[in-house]
Amino acid sequence: MHKGMGEKYYAADLFDGTRWQRRVTLEVDAEGSLSSIRPKTRAPEDAEVLSGPVVPGMPNLHSHAFQRAMAGLAEIRGPSEDDCWSWREAMYRLAARLDPEALEAVAAQAFVEMLTAGYTSVCEFHYLHRDPDGAHYADRAELGKRILAAAAASGIGITLLPVLYQHGGFDRRELTRRQRRFYLSSEEFIDLTVRIAAATEADPNQAWGFAFHSLRAVAPEVLSEVRAALDPAVPVHIHVAEQQAEVTECVAHLGRRPVAWLTRNVELGPGWTLIHATHMDADETEAVARSGAVVGLCPTTEANLGDGLFPLEAYLSAGGVFGIGSDSQVSISPIEELRWLEYGRRLVSGRRNTVASAADPRCGTGLWRRSLVGGARATGRPIGQMTAGARADWLVIDPQAAQMVSLEADAILDLLVFSGNRCPVRDVMVGGRWRVRDGHHPGAEAVRRRFLETTRRLNERR
Amino acid sequence: MHKGMGEKYYAADLFDGTRWQRRVTLEVDAEGSLSSIRPKTRAPEDAEVLSGPVVPGMPNLHSHAFQRAMAGLAEIRGPSEDDCWSWREAMYRLAARLDPEALEAVAAQAFVEMLTAGYTSVCEFHYLHRDPDGAHYADRAELGKRILAAAAASGIGITLLPVLYQHGGFDRRELTRRQRRFYLSSEEFIDLTVRIAAATEADPNQAWGFAFHSLRAVAPEVLSEVRAALDPAVPVHIHVAEQQAEVTECVAHLGRRPVAWLTRNVELGPGWTLIHATHMDADETEAVARSGAVVGLCPTTEANLGDGLFPLEAYLSAGGVFGIGSDSQVSISPIEELRWLEYGRRLVSGRRNTVASAADPRCGTGLWRRSLVGGARATGRPIGQMTAGARADWLVIDPQAAQMVSLEADAILDLLVFSGNRCPVRDVMVGGRWRVRDGHHPGAEAVRRRFLETTRRLNERR
Repeated sequence: MHKGMGEKYYAADLFDGTRWQRRVTLEVDAEGSLSSIRPKTRAPEDAEVLSGPVVPGMPNLHSHAFQRAMAGLAEIRGPSEDDCWSWREAMYRLAARLDPEALEAVAAQAFVEMLTAGYTSVCEFHYLHRDPDGAHYADRAELGKRILAAAAASGIGITLLPVLYQHGGFDRRELTRRQRRFYLSSEEFIDLTVRIAAATEADPNQAWGFAFHSLRAVAPEVLSEVRAALDPAVPVHIHVAEQQAEVTECVAHLGRRPVAWLTRNVELGPGWTLIHATHMDADETEAVARSGAVVGLCPTTEANLGDGLFPLEAYLSAGGVFGIGSDSQVSISPIEELRWLEYGRRLVSGRRNTVASAADPRCGTGLWRRSLVGGARATGRPIGQMTAGARADWLVIDPQAAQMVSLEADAILDLLVFSGNRCPVRDVMVGGRWRVRDGHHPGAEAVRRRFLETTRRLNERR
Repeated sequence: MHKGMGEKYYAADLFDGTRWQRRVTLEVDAEGSLSSIRPKTRAPEDAEVLSGPVVPGMPNLHSHAFQRAMAGLAEIRGPSEDDCWSWREAMYRLAARLDPEALEAVAAQAFVEMLTAGYTSVCEFHYLHRDPDGAHYADRAELGKRILAAAAASGIGITLLPVLYQHGGFDRRELTRRQRRFYLSSEEFIDLTVRIAAATEADPNQAWGFAFHSLRAVAPEVLSEVRAALDPAVPVHIHVAEQQAEVTECVAHLGRRPVAWLTRNVELGPGWTLIHATHMDADETEAVARSGAVVGLCPTTEANLGDGLFPLEAYLSAGGVFGIGSDSQVSISPIEELRWLEYGRRLVSGRRNTVASAADPRCGTGLWRRSLVGGARATGRPIGQMTAGARADWLVIDPQAAQMVSLEADAILDLLVFSGNRCPVRDVMVGGRWRVRDGHHPGAEAVRRRFLETTRRLNERR
């Protein structure tokens, strides 16, 4: 076996994104990509023998990192009937008072938690652009760069998605005072994407894309113009059909349900990620599945906000692709997202193992495999599988964790997703470098201290 | 302040089961009970100042400890439509091959995990009585005593509930070969309760009660006779209305829905705990709430099995009392049970903070407080609150955990229940003795090693 400059070898049993392979030699090049995967070979003598089975790291396809500062603080009943607005009001209050240092401290904590939980990359849906008074920062990409800095320090891969957010509703009303940090004109937004693209260029673990906040926040003609002005090769994300009220308003103003409007007016395809898409009728479900777009499911946030349950079985039957996201950061765990995505379907159907089939019977394996595919597509990067050319992003599962009541390879992802409350992820690699070893991120203590100082200061000021 | 023999003092801010109190001195007597609670006092000089806020430990009101050996191994789609029977078949296979040593090893792991997660006591619903060939053990309480030994070694409080399980359905069919370990005649069962009562007598952290497996498994006249023969002061539990199919069969054989049958034919009261009670109509919901019986909710197991969602808002409006249980052990976490109990309601109602009210607005506080009340009642012990005479069972929350973005007392239980994926329980006391310190149970490693040896042996034999 020839060994080039800077290459490293690892030996393990692995799930390559599709199936389990025994005694595999993984070769990682100096840029952090997998250059070869050889099953059933004798590894080179200097190969690192990994301490447990290996699975591809999970992409987190939807995150608002700053919301980590308020996780758990909006669980208070308001004076009237309580819906998602009790949470949104708390979020606006937080967004109005974050300074750049605070944002970086909060994002760093979120990213360290993501890595430790088994997320190796994140799509950051980033809509904080201006300062608290509504003025531009001297560097208009100041806040985006703070997020990139936090990602680089933690070691997580990132696709930063600056967000266009112009209106407070389908009636095109202006943003409120508390939302004014989110506003950019279309020209300012396009300019911001150029700055963000430049800022991510040097780091192979960083990339960019962009997002429309929602059909509530961006007018149809603006959506078309901005889409046409930007690189068609980068990922584009949008929040859609999260709440029933949004569907009703969309029908009133645009004449169609939001997902139906998108499928008719936008050339949906694998470059698009629709976040939530909770409320779809049968035709919308079928159309999105056929388009190749990704649906971004965020089960813990969607449950916290009372959004409703995504029609998963119908969507998968039609060939739909999904990934998962930690969104509001009430939970940061691919395990909790996938477990409760499936459990939600069981609770309403009275059936078990709803995403599995007789031909593909393992429920945990199926959930992990499917969300790798969608997550990678949403990220726009060669991740989510263990094949030559893919980025070396993987997790080593601790075979001594109390969940591992069987070491049969086929059982491992079922045990990971469906058993226990301690994360059995032992080691985490991103882009060919270890970021977590033995469950521990080397920056965790310093990041947590700074995070707690920051959040307590922010939350006392409320 | 007078100090008696063997008394110990602790100083902390605490949630007493109803409200938060600042700078409290807790006095614990030599038997492990709270002898006084003095708010806003100066603690004695030798008081231990606790390292964070204190909350009462959670009772786990429904556990089948042995099922910990198969957690995560039944997430496989069967050849036909999959319902709860795919899980039950796997459970019967496991139950058929456990020996007493294996049962003790598995129970010890479950109990150590419970303590570390914040459960300070457990009601063990114990239906494994005979050996794998269907013969009695030399000591007929052999398996129950193994569970008590595991509980004593771990330090968890236990109410052991031997279970009467005689039939395989409402048609009174005999138990199958794989169920034969569960069978006792009524006389054998009454004799077993006497042995279990004697075995728990010496340990102040151990108690007994009994259970009827379900209306499927015990004929009405046997239920009445056995109930009448046993101590009316001990707790009695029963599985009821977990699945829709069970409701239909019960109507066919007994002429009423299962909960309606119970409310008419049994003197329900605070001594009764109805496990699941998922499928109730409005009259049943109201009748159970009025009776003072406890409903035992097991949200993670009920989700895993696709049982359905309990009508929580209606039950609470009628004054109903509930507690929580880890049941099949797919999850062992009061946090996950309470979080998803509430999230389930949010998902179907489109509302947030459904168990809270304008007068009682904190959702996490409300969930913890209510499940303490029901859990204590189901256990039949003076636990679940911090008042004089109660057992000293409490948790110290780590104020440096990343969840604790505010240290305002009112926020702590919301942050505990609704944020994050690492348990912020730092120290755990049961009956006046520390069982977990700094997140670590001193027996954890040895128990886990023995557990993994045992489960891998069991699961390879399948």
